[in-house]
Amino acid sequence: MKKELDTYTKLLNSALELFRKKGYSATGINEIVAQSGAPKGCLYHYFPGGKEEIAIKVVKAYEKAESNKIKRILSSSPDPVKAFELIFEEFIEKISRGGEFENLSITLLSLESINISESLRKACASAFESLETLFTERLVESGFKEEIAKERARILLCLFNGALTLSLSQKNISHLLLAKKEIRSILFYY
Amino acid sequence: MKKELDTYTKLLNSALELFRKKGYSATGINEIVAQSGAPKGCLYHYFPGGKEEIAIKVVKAYEKAESNKIKRILSSSPDPVKAFELIFEEFIEKISRGGEFENLSITLLSLESINISESLRKACASAFESLETLFTERLVESGFKEEIAKERARILLCLFNGALTLSLSQKNISHLLLAKKEIRSILFYY
Repeated sequence: MKKELDTYTKLLNSALELFRKKGYSATGINEIVAQSGAPKGCLYHYFPGGKEEIAIKVVKAYEKAESNKIKRILSSSPDPVKAFELIFEEFIEKISRGGEFENLSITLLSLESINISESLRKACASAFESLETLFTERLVESGFKEEIAKERARILLCLFNGALTLSLSQKNISHLLLAKKEIRSILFYY
Repeated sequence: MKKELDTYTKLLNSALELFRKKGYSATGINEIVAQSGAPKGCLYHYFPGGKEEIAIKVVKAYEKAESNKIKRILSSSPDPVKAFELIFEEFIEKISRGGEFENLSITLLSLESINISESLRKACASAFESLETLFTERLVESGFKEEIAKERARILLCLFNGALTLSLSQKNISHLLLAKKEIRSILFYY
């Protein structure tokens, strides 16, 4: 049983690593298997739906892990502005450290999937929705009315997503830094 | 001379169409040539750098065309809030019309290129910079101080980019609609 689980996890990790670096389209099934060290041809045993299925599983696993991390960060300060600043800082620090950016880009997989795989697109959309829900819940905890919390959470997510894309694209953290300074206005002056 | 130009343009248009639908990695050189109707093997005559070179040319041509369009829209109202709302509306309308979204996604090409092609990444980064410059110039025209204009333009670009990604990912215009309502606050209450 342990061996079964290991091969499955190795394939999943190797797929995550490749999708992170190259995206969905540029990653080949054979590459995933080769990098995992698993026996050839075993991918379809664990993932009968092939690359599409493993990508969906990768996104779901990533969504779960990221949700736990984001929830932890958001609960680490009683001040909602500070809590959201910590989210931005987490990514600013990762990009500043230079070298490879170790996050899977749901944005990349999501845009790649639009004309290629409806199930992968839905998995990515659901990952974004989870994030929006976590943001909303955090604001409700701080006393925002449900409707306002939903709206502010959505604006923060758009701002964060765009700032991350632009910072990655420019290899420069200035968009994320500026967006971080905007959190207070988004939450309180609108 | 006319024939030369036609083949070049046909290849460029066919590449644009394929990159728009499938992104950079999933598009093959042979596919570009086949769809253009140009003779096999002629792509390297016009684009010795192959797929990477044609992608960079596509991004540059798209940047130029989009810049002209955005500049025209931004100058169509004396009110800066209205002017930026019209940009958001342009994309909201395109997505609402359903069917295929006819814009090339610089975000997709940009994120794909990060670990694959430094020159393509730079071309995409430059397209984003042009957009930011146009936004800044529009705000300066409305009397914003240069420094404030740059900052507000950058925040608007982040918000717009994120809202577009999320609306495309969810196949739903609600993020763009909400972001559009935020323009006035971004420009005047911060």
